[in-house]
Amino acid sequence: MKTKLKIIKIGGNIIDDPDQLNQFLIRFSTLKGQKILVHGGGKTASDFSKKLGIKPHLINGRRITHKEDLEIVTMVYAGLINKKITAILQREGCNAIGLSGVDANCIQSVKRPVESIDYGCVGNVKSVESLTIDLLLTQNIVPVFSAITHDGAGNLLNTNADTIASEIAIAMNNIYDTELIYCFEKSGVLQPHENEEVVIERMDQRLFHQMKSENTIYGGMIPKIENCFHALKNNVQKVSIGNAYHLTEPGQVATTIHLS
Amino acid sequence: MKTKLKIIKIGGNIIDDPDQLNQFLIRFSTLKGQKILVHGGGKTASDFSKKLGIKPHLINGRRITHKEDLEIVTMVYAGLINKKITAILQREGCNAIGLSGVDANCIQSVKRPVESIDYGCVGNVKSVESLTIDLLLTQNIVPVFSAITHDGAGNLLNTNADTIASEIAIAMNNIYDTELIYCFEKSGVLQPHENEEVVIERMDQRLFHQMKSENTIYGGMIPKIENCFHALKNNVQKVSIGNAYHLTEPGQVATTIHLS
Repeated sequence: MKTKLKIIKIGGNIIDDPDQLNQFLIRFSTLKGQKILVHGGGKTASDFSKKLGIKPHLINGRRITHKEDLEIVTMVYAGLINKKITAILQREGCNAIGLSGVDANCIQSVKRPVESIDYGCVGNVKSVESLTIDLLLTQNIVPVFSAITHDGAGNLLNTNADTIASEIAIAMNNIYDTELIYCFEKSGVLQPHENEEVVIERMDQRLFHQMKSENTIYGGMIPKIENCFHALKNNVQKVSIGNAYHLTEPGQVATTIHLS
Repeated sequence: MKTKLKIIKIGGNIIDDPDQLNQFLIRFSTLKGQKILVHGGGKTASDFSKKLGIKPHLINGRRITHKEDLEIVTMVYAGLINKKITAILQREGCNAIGLSGVDANCIQSVKRPVESIDYGCVGNVKSVESLTIDLLLTQNIVPVFSAITHDGAGNLLNTNADTIASEIAIAMNNIYDTELIYCFEKSGVLQPHENEEVVIERMDQRLFHQMKSENTIYGGMIPKIENCFHALKNNVQKVSIGNAYHLTEPGQVATTIHLS
């Protein structure tokens, strides 16, 4: 049996709130066993763009990345957020290493081809260097990935953090039994129920297509769940979506994803 | 005999000029043997501060780092410049990994005590994890360090890149024979001579004190040369200051530093 490896992605409002981020990272650092953290940071990047007078463009939760936007996301994701997270984890005794995909060629991507939308300097993941990542894990070093990759031709590319998390989970499967966990400020995938929203504890492809057609699931949640199915189809053992408590408290409600 | 390791620091106008940076990195990537790159980026950070309406403060070439300045240098050094450099080196077939001192706890520092000047969020190097850095080197991964360190208590600190280079050279001495090379846009330490400036090919402590008292050496060059002497006193084998050509062309004029 292979060793277990958890790939955890944080995003959303957790990153933008110093207290929530701190609490999340304390939980993450206490998590036993091998683990990798992947983080977004879109809202911080958008705020920063505005300060510089550059208007951020998002379509279905995905950023259109012009050259000046690429500089900003590289600074904010790979610089500010990545190093802040790493410093807090180091404080908590977790030997974190902040990386982007370009570092040691960990994640190479190809510029997304222009179809109906030109996303600009955005990459689709092409390859993950599982052996290099494993070299760090075996030394009890915890990789913390920002969502910046490179094309091998000297260009950085902005890459969806959810996709990076699922591609790492898939690639590391040749060495570990991988589990993919998406953490955000909510307790899972929600649906309206008698004037409130309740967590869907089990999501499968049938329910996903039904909810899409009813418009009860929309925006950034659609590609997130598609990433979950993609991971499961590629032998990732377990995939779930929940909040930070879900990470360390087994009884906590969350959405687990199944193909059927 | 120990394996040789070159610690090369680039700074000054090389980083600010994309063509010069590109040419430098092509030279660096062809350099045989074990190597580490350390980079500054002060001018880019200053330009960026101005765009955001924050006035940079420098005293004797050292930056006073308020909290908002720390965010900017973290973004610019550890994000933008570090990842750009790493992407170019990857393109050139050099398996670079962009790091700051917080990553895998490579360089820990202590906040500089307030004496006559309060430098703010600035760190003095306390320790370098030579074994972690060696782990990368033995896998033919080339560390590229930005000048951001951490204090182990969750705080990032801005740290002089020249000092980081000399402290890495000193720390790696327990495993390698280390050579420290400062590269910038000039051909070495210059002195006025018949209406032009010529390179001082040999600098020692006696000449340094003489030039300081004559004011023919000043500003950022003083701490740079002090770093050189500090490295030599701590058994670094060879220390020099020169331009990018000096790196790969043995006949190229440069300043070699000696204690006496």
